[in-house]
Amino acid sequence: MDREKIGRYREIRREYRSGYINVNPIQRGGILSEAARKALLEFGDGYSICDFCPPKEARLDAIKRPPVAEFMENLAQFLGMDVARVTTRCRESKFIAFRMLCKPGDYVVVDSLAHYSTYLAAELAMLKVKEAAHQGPPEYRITPEAYAKQIEEVEKEAGRPPAAALLTHVDSTYGNLVDPKPIAEICHEHGVPLILNAAYTAGVMPVDGGKLQVDILAGSGHKSWAASAPTGILALKGEWAEKVLARSSLRGEWTGRSFPNKEVALLGCTVMGAPLATLIASFPHVVERVQRWDEEVRKAQYLVEQLERIEGVRQLGVKPKQHTLIYVESEGFYRVSKTHKRRGFFLYEELRDRGIVGVQPGLTRHFKLNTYGLSWEEVKHVAEAFQEIARKYGLSVH
Amino acid sequence: MDREKIGRYREIRREYRSGYINVNPIQRGGILSEAARKALLEFGDGYSICDFCPPKEARLDAIKRPPVAEFMENLAQFLGMDVARVTTRCRESKFIAFRMLCKPGDYVVVDSLAHYSTYLAAELAMLKVKEAAHQGPPEYRITPEAYAKQIEEVEKEAGRPPAAALLTHVDSTYGNLVDPKPIAEICHEHGVPLILNAAYTAGVMPVDGGKLQVDILAGSGHKSWAASAPTGILALKGEWAEKVLARSSLRGEWTGRSFPNKEVALLGCTVMGAPLATLIASFPHVVERVQRWDEEVRKAQYLVEQLERIEGVRQLGVKPKQHTLIYVESEGFYRVSKTHKRRGFFLYEELRDRGIVGVQPGLTRHFKLNTYGLSWEEVKHVAEAFQEIARKYGLSVH
Repeated sequence: MDREKIGRYREIRREYRSGYINVNPIQRGGILSEAARKALLEFGDGYSICDFCPPKEARLDAIKRPPVAEFMENLAQFLGMDVARVTTRCRESKFIAFRMLCKPGDYVVVDSLAHYSTYLAAELAMLKVKEAAHQGPPEYRITPEAYAKQIEEVEKEAGRPPAAALLTHVDSTYGNLVDPKPIAEICHEHGVPLILNAAYTAGVMPVDGGKLQVDILAGSGHKSWAASAPTGILALKGEWAEKVLARSSLRGEWTGRSFPNKEVALLGCTVMGAPLATLIASFPHVVERVQRWDEEVRKAQYLVEQLERIEGVRQLGVKPKQHTLIYVESEGFYRVSKTHKRRGFFLYEELRDRGIVGVQPGLTRHFKLNTYGLSWEEVKHVAEAFQEIARKYGLSVH
Repeated sequence: MDREKIGRYREIRREYRSGYINVNPIQRGGILSEAARKALLEFGDGYSICDFCPPKEARLDAIKRPPVAEFMENLAQFLGMDVARVTTRCRESKFIAFRMLCKPGDYVVVDSLAHYSTYLAAELAMLKVKEAAHQGPPEYRITPEAYAKQIEEVEKEAGRPPAAALLTHVDSTYGNLVDPKPIAEICHEHGVPLILNAAYTAGVMPVDGGKLQVDILAGSGHKSWAASAPTGILALKGEWAEKVLARSSLRGEWTGRSFPNKEVALLGCTVMGAPLATLIASFPHVVERVQRWDEEVRKAQYLVEQLERIEGVRQLGVKPKQHTLIYVESEGFYRVSKTHKRRGFFLYEELRDRGIVGVQPGLTRHFKLNTYGLSWEEVKHVAEAFQEIARKYGLSVH
């Protein structure tokens, strides 16, 4: 190992930390609040949250100094659910739900726009997956009927309904918002609990799991709660909490040791330091910001309108946008890339030259961006930058 | 939800952040280096590590800016292993190993001093646990023979050897260091891979998995690598890497989607932000500090010597100490607590008044402390504080 080379690790820096408008699709909702930035340093050291772990419960969610226990209660309340836990990632929340609701070999039904981590969570839990179809281009809508069809297919095939269903509230490709309620109703008619993957919604827009009738809600702190990675949220309706948060029942044969206070699927404790502190410190900011969601949607709609003025550009997914994650198809920029000496990288570089980062380097034909939390001025700058680049390369802007 | 009350979350602070000597048994190895403190702010925002995620691999371990890929190679090298990954916790690493090496219903053999999270990891992976016995008080030694006995018992009972064995390199109760090599040899004679739980060793003392002949090594960033929680380490010998880091083989029936680049048990990616940055930034510091381990052990031995001068105090576990985690039995302080108006809390409070925190509030008869990284001056202050408190309450100090 080269000591001098590894010495450089001391200086790792983020290349575009400030001075740029970052439209990265997964990053807009995870920018820390000022309070979170302070909490980060305060709780930076290893097990910093555990100074006053109550010896009797010896569990993260029972800690009162700092107020972890109280925070988790507020978190459940805020989401219209009964019980909340912080996990290490939304995908871990999904795995936990699958693992504890299902047995190996069981079926689960998921929407066909589900994030790859939903499939992986099911695979890790040894489950079989049925996909509720979308309605294809250009909107890719997910319907309650598609869930009904798959649930019934499982019933036919396996002789019993799927062990669980999962709906992606807003998908990571098209940014389509799906109403969970009619899907929850269908699930419940068949006795199937519905897990809502709210990674792109809870924390940026109002989400009331109670009103939406979902049974379990999985969220992402680093995606949508102004928190550091890795933080996930797992919120449950009472009837499911006991099952999903089941305590350990193992007993050591020789030692007789047992761990009846520990929640098995959480492996005891989860986020024991800095990222949890950021999630807590940002909570007041999050509670307040979800109220401004309508304005955020208006900014996304404005940007789509401006982008679609460019020759060969259209937004895919449901129209008009109901979320700030935007999927762009752009035959025009793609055509330019074919003869540009920088190929597909030209778009990324032209944007960067205009102070905009976060569109994936190399992409021109299909790319994603997210306007969440940008000011109107910034959104307008992004729109103008795209139009300027279009004109520079001979694409018309009507 | 009371807005004013939740507003206080903005101000969460750590009560004993500085100005105290913290001897908390789980916290000494997780105090950030200065470089890590800078990295924390730099990579505080959500998915901050993912700015340049390579689209082809789309995996954390493939990221080159910042140098995550290079770091993981160095990490494997440093541990004498072939492949390394960062997970969210040591316990997640153990679960991943159990899940991928075993089938539900399989047996694993673990030492009888194993951390509770080892049992939970086995339970989550649906395994049965056999415990290799320790030799009882006062040293609680774990022997290779105890492993041989349990492996053979499993062979008799199940008709085949256990699917894996796990050894706790240094246990969290007595701080006993166990030599993995003879245990690994026994495991290998029976064709059983050995997982080493190195949560208390790798990162604070030299650990060479190759020389120790272990197959898989699990470590804890927030416990022993001067990193923020939650960070775990999973290091593997080549032959096991393929099995444990197996890629997804699921294929969506309707969409045809598949995820052949994603490591199933890691659910794709793990620590996508700040704590990973601290682990990387602290790495040069860690590589250097493990060389000073002998001095750390001498400080622990000195403290034990001084504590045992107090009436009714003895160190339990293997003697002399080979690790900085110390288990103290103290009949003297316990006797005092019985008539003290603050009961068992008197010891905690007397220590706190002398600038020392980290001994669990309420405990007097049995408690743990850790001297790792304290200066000689601090260790001497801790020793003197205990002796002073002893004398104050009429315990003799010889």
